[in-house]
Amino acid sequence: MQINVETKPVASAAYNTRKKRLVETIDRLYHRNAKASLQKVISRLHPADMASILDELPLEHVVDIFYTISDTAMAAEVFSQLSPSLRTEVMTESPIEQLAAVLQHVAPDDLADLVGDLPEDQRAQLMALLDRESKDEVESLLQYDPNSAGGIMTTDFFSLPHTLMVEEAIENIRGREDVEMVFYLYLTDEAGRLVGVVSLRQLLLARPGTPLDKVMNRRVMKVTTDADQTTVAMLVEKYHLLAVPVVDEENVLVGMVTVDDVIDVLEEETTRDMLKMAGTSESETLTHSAFKIAGIRLPWLLAAFIGGLAATAVIGRYEAILGEVLVLSAFLPVVMGMAGNVGVQSATVAVRGLATGAIDIRDTVPLVLKELRVGLLLGGFYGVILATYGYLMYDSLSLGQVVGLTILGNMTGAALLAVLLPMIFQRLKVDPAVATGPFVTTAIDILGVLNYFVIASWIYKL
Amino acid sequence: MQINVETKPVASAAYNTRKKRLVETIDRLYHRNAKASLQKVISRLHPADMASILDELPLEHVVDIFYTISDTAMAAEVFSQLSPSLRTEVMTESPIEQLAAVLQHVAPDDLADLVGDLPEDQRAQLMALLDRESKDEVESLLQYDPNSAGGIMTTDFFSLPHTLMVEEAIENIRGREDVEMVFYLYLTDEAGRLVGVVSLRQLLLARPGTPLDKVMNRRVMKVTTDADQTTVAMLVEKYHLLAVPVVDEENVLVGMVTVDDVIDVLEEETTRDMLKMAGTSESETLTHSAFKIAGIRLPWLLAAFIGGLAATAVIGRYEAILGEVLVLSAFLPVVMGMAGNVGVQSATVAVRGLATGAIDIRDTVPLVLKELRVGLLLGGFYGVILATYGYLMYDSLSLGQVVGLTILGNMTGAALLAVLLPMIFQRLKVDPAVATGPFVTTAIDILGVLNYFVIASWIYKL
Repeated sequence: MQINVETKPVASAAYNTRKKRLVETIDRLYHRNAKASLQKVISRLHPADMASILDELPLEHVVDIFYTISDTAMAAEVFSQLSPSLRTEVMTESPIEQLAAVLQHVAPDDLADLVGDLPEDQRAQLMALLDRESKDEVESLLQYDPNSAGGIMTTDFFSLPHTLMVEEAIENIRGREDVEMVFYLYLTDEAGRLVGVVSLRQLLLARPGTPLDKVMNRRVMKVTTDADQTTVAMLVEKYHLLAVPVVDEENVLVGMVTVDDVIDVLEEETTRDMLKMAGTSESETLTHSAFKIAGIRLPWLLAAFIGGLAATAVIGRYEAILGEVLVLSAFLPVVMGMAGNVGVQSATVAVRGLATGAIDIRDTVPLVLKELRVGLLLGGFYGVILATYGYLMYDSLSLGQVVGLTILGNMTGAALLAVLLPMIFQRLKVDPAVATGPFVTTAIDILGVLNYFVIASWIYKL
Repeated sequence: MQINVETKPVASAAYNTRKKRLVETIDRLYHRNAKASLQKVISRLHPADMASILDELPLEHVVDIFYTISDTAMAAEVFSQLSPSLRTEVMTESPIEQLAAVLQHVAPDDLADLVGDLPEDQRAQLMALLDRESKDEVESLLQYDPNSAGGIMTTDFFSLPHTLMVEEAIENIRGREDVEMVFYLYLTDEAGRLVGVVSLRQLLLARPGTPLDKVMNRRVMKVTTDADQTTVAMLVEKYHLLAVPVVDEENVLVGMVTVDDVIDVLEEETTRDMLKMAGTSESETLTHSAFKIAGIRLPWLLAAFIGGLAATAVIGRYEAILGEVLVLSAFLPVVMGMAGNVGVQSATVAVRGLATGAIDIRDTVPLVLKELRVGLLLGGFYGVILATYGYLMYDSLSLGQVVGLTILGNMTGAALLAVLLPMIFQRLKVDPAVATGPFVTTAIDILGVLNYFVIASWIYKL
């Protein structure tokens, strides 16, 4: 990744039309073998745009066109931003030396992610292409948990000894155009320990002849390599930081996490939450086979399946009533569905609130009381309608009473359960998103069916 | 908002213990009336921390303690970061002049958000407290759609004429400590039109005596005031920007959107998506009454309710079979539940993939084919188990056939429908998240019940 304004961006307006035209132009120039023109067009593009253009070009031209990029640093940027499937294509179809040249310029954190995603055999092949320094960096990055600060940090940061003068620091920054965009300058002691930070702006404001020591801020917001990536993200979000330095257990500066990595972490965590709530897991992607995806979803569905069988057993026990009052079956879907739906609503509000910090465990009591009232209101409303419908359609006051009371009870219970479970899971330090998956739905189903037949036995006195 | 390292951050380690201790210390000092010590402790805190500490102090002390903050700029920061309910408390309980003094320092975009959230009468009261300049800024910001670039931008940006020299620009930055953290310097012509941008780093690298004109980048990534906030967020995310300038239809620079605002937008959009998928809307918050929340959820549940009634009607038509084979009722929950669950899985994968850009409309055919296979695999697996269970428990081959075939059909159909609908909605430019709410669930319920009885009539020849 790279944060800068020096690269040449495309305008945002009419973006799609422009992209389509570029795809056509580039493919036409390639067909005509007009290499110089092709290079000129490409050199004007932002790497992010070039990556998405490659994604739309015919697959058999992609590798050739990719290697038309004359600036290796740009090629590395484009490579990092390719979609995973296209990146694999480029890696497997590339001439070895050309690929190696590009990989030398890929940022170490991106390289480590890349290598980490590869199967064992391709991993060794790729590592063999790297020069000594890159290889060492990638190997040290691979030792960290991919979800920790160490796993998401880049080692491509900029630090200087805290004993320098302001003008020496500026001189140093001038000489290093290769590192990631500098907005904070981290200052270290002789052992490489992080002792302070100055912003570029502070450097600009300081008068020459001032030692960095005098301008720097000694209380640096930092994380250790083993900090959870969510903690890092929350730190950046809360304090509006552009980057956080990462230190080891001896306070030695080993890397930094930038705000754009944090955006990726936040998106990734949310995706994981949503998939867990739906009862599947984060590892499902477009590139997986149907077999693999089915394997991922299968166990999550087991809870629902066992719950369904339990409901079957419950209904089996009440077969006598069903025999007498056949129409009770007809109302099963609406009675169960309404409870399930209100449960998903309540659970989502709770899970998302916990994830964004809008609510926390201390809000449990007011939240549960509120859901109780919401459930009673909704259950009351739909209960009255369903009771009236049952009474009018089937000319049976008893049926109206049974379905009306059931909906009232089921919707209230579902709202309560669906807000209570995520709060309890959060307190037990289990991911609350799991609580909203098939588990809650299943619990609501069984209890709902049971409630239905208990009320029916009572009203029909059977 | 403010992005800087100059403020004094707390360390992230042992954060909660430290916070708890601070809450106790501050409350104790307040009780002892030790104002000087209290001010000293508070002045060392980061505004974000002070805001969350106030959130845990006894409500009756909050306003007093808030006004102990001696630095008005810090008080304004803290005020902006208070939870909405606490902010209302401070606003209603504050002495007018003190509140006015704080509000002068609140960033115009935060002020506009604040005023926008207030009821009509309080709005006028608050506007009366602002000085002329702030009032004008807030009024102009309020004219933009809150979900547009104009609605989320700050007017507190930094720009200079492009005709200046590099050293004049640096001199200017030195003199303006009040504006939001400068990382990009926007350059305008005599009519205020945006003509270029330089980063602080470029300014540092340029030799004195160079006109800004020569160093600046003329192709600025920018948005117009009416651009959708999601477009702005995607631009920042894609190109790893720290800020985007906002221009009006004449290209006059009127504001900027910073990366921390973008993080808020991304979180907000995701919350909205998740709530829509659950069948409720974004306007539900902790501060709403139970009545209001019930009112928000009620219409979303209507689709499910009507669907449930339709299922009732379907089952009613097949009462004859039910009378003959009572046990069919018992399998209704499992047959419907499994289809619903696999549907939610598929729909979530599709909706989230579309939102993050991992998939797009062009992936429709491969995605649908893959879901078809996934549905067949899962349906086949659970179909065989359920058929065996039905056969063994009820000693009926026909029952086994009916439930097994139904699960196979329902799960496959649900997976297909749940991936197809979001893709169709996306193509029609309707929010695909809506497609996953009660609508899909309801469609799956009705079709599932119908399928069940069609298969049952066929196998039982009734």
